[in-house]
Amino acid sequence: MNKHTPTTTLLWSKTAHFSVQIYYEDTDFSGVVYHPNFLKYFERAREHVIGANILQQLWADQGLCFAVYKTDMICHEGVEFADIIDVRTQFCFESKYRTIWKQEIWRPNATKAAVTAHIEMVCMNNKRQLTAMPAELIALLNQTMPS
Amino acid sequence: MNKHTPTTTLLWSKTAHFSVQIYYEDTDFSGVVYHPNFLKYFERAREHVIGANILQQLWADQGLCFAVYKTDMICHEGVEFADIIDVRTQFCFESKYRTIWKQEIWRPNATKAAVTAHIEMVCMNNKRQLTAMPAELIALLNQTMPS
Amino acid sequence: MNKHTPTTTLLWSKTAHFSVQIYYEDTDFSGVVYHPNFLKYFERAREHVIGANILQQLWADQGLCFAVYKTDMICHEGVEFADIIDVRTQFCFESKYRTIWKQEIWRPNATKAAVTAHIEMVCMNNKRQLTAMPAELIALLNQTMPS
Amino acid sequence: MNKHTPTTTLLWSKTAHFSVQIYYEDTDFSGVVYHPNFLKYFERAREHVIGANILQQLWADQGLCFAVYKTDMICHEGVEFADIIDVRTQFCFESKYRTIWKQEIWRPNATKAAVTAHIEMVCMNNKRQLTAMPAELIALLNQTMPS
Repeated sequence: MNKHTPTTTLLWSKTAHFSVQIYYEDTDFSGVVYHPNFLKYFERAREHVIGANILQQLWADQGLCFAVYKTDMICHEGVEFADIIDVRTQFCFESKYRTIWKQEIWRPNATKAAVTAHIEMVCMNNKRQLTAMPAELIALLNQTMPS
Repeated sequence: MNKHTPTTTLLWSKTAHFSVQIYYEDTDFSGVVYHPNFLKYFERAREHVIGANILQQLWADQGLCFAVYKTDMICHEGVEFADIIDVRTQFCFESKYRTIWKQEIWRPNATKAAVTAHIEMVCMNNKRQLTAMPAELIALLNQTMPS
Repeated sequence: MNKHTPTTTLLWSKTAHFSVQIYYEDTDFSGVVYHPNFLKYFERAREHVIGANILQQLWADQGLCFAVYKTDMICHEGVEFADIIDVRTQFCFESKYRTIWKQEIWRPNATKAAVTAHIEMVCMNNKRQLTAMPAELIALLNQTMPS
Repeated sequence: MNKHTPTTTLLWSKTAHFSVQIYYEDTDFSGVVYHPNFLKYFERAREHVIGANILQQLWADQGLCFAVYKTDMICHEGVEFADIIDVRTQFCFESKYRTIWKQEIWRPNATKAAVTAHIEMVCMNNKRQLTAMPAELIALLNQTMPS
């Protein structure tokens, strides 16, 4: 899907699509989106794949959350005010502790991605210790995998 | 100090000064600071008046924090990239639950404030219930009051 | 609609509804939405009432934008991660230079607003000078007014 | 300096140090800094190395700015509210179009970096076209290089 993809035989999920409209708050005085905001859009898209309610329950009931360990991002093209972008997301399980995410931002009518990213997330408890993802969560997320 | 000042005989603290440099992240494509960011600068300045370590201990030890209840803000003038602004802050105790803050943003060499605000904060516990400020905190903050 | 409403006979638009989901980025360590973010949601909602494409054209073609002059906001209740809030928006023309906005944030299943605001916006050119709104824009926005 | 360093013989600048205090706005409900904010601190530090006034003049006088092309970041450890972090920055010229930055975030009294990053920036004109950095800018930045 993009240049950051590791050459492994990991099983990748289907591609999820998530729309984000670019508002004043997203831009800076150079006229395009301020680059750290792309990481926000990627996070929003991941929250939709996992489910915000599930993330909330994991935290409230088990003190678990996902922390970003690694983000590699390439910004190929500026994204502009009023654009409605398509955030494309695929993920895989690298282990029971870690998920890997391939995410891209596509501008309207684009023939290639404006931004591509490779992001690694780890499951942690509320003492910031690496923790295995609960089996039910893995089962739930596995439903988005191609059979 | 500004137009939002209530006509009371509350005892106001001395004016604290806090500098903020305006970065890319602070602006939007219209070329000036995106207005919600002014509330961020006011908050940073309040954290310096109270002390970030004290706020951290209040939360960790007693589950107490300050929540903004009311903010009235007037933006008289745009603030630009690379400006180093002076955030001027005065506060008073309205009760043992509530502090009132008069805050202003001054651009370099300005003859009047670019932004003026009146902000009310209440003390809350971690169940979001109104709670009296601890006596030691009130004593500490009273040290910034003119004798 | 809220406590900030001026007692005038201004003609108010119908109430527009706009949904915002609360993500990680919206909260702070106290566990609820960081208050300046409410001003962002209000701005997003206003951009949907006016139309982001119209705002973009105004800026590109005529060098015009809307600047927030005044924001009065009351935060009655905390808003939490994973909430999907309803931003309710009404506006009126105070003059050909200025619009007034009454905006509220409602949490799911709430019986009253969590946040209420009164916001005043002025039309400016790219030299930050007060400028009359173009007649076509006024006509367009008037279509949202009750007959 | 960190794991992202390319194995080249590029000439690196001295390490610049820049302090950032962590405020409410920087954290999310998990209790630590929201990860995209690290990219903001790195940008602030770069602006101090180059000089905000110089960036402003480049934009105003020549329509030039720096755009982030690539960011690789590893978050080794959470950063907490009230921390005063040390952002360490080195850069080199990869070409007259591109600079490479090695940046790290150190918590107080840490024995290793909490966050490490490799960032590539390109010089662009206001039509988003790749443009050579002006000779005077290169000369100015070269003053931070070890002789």
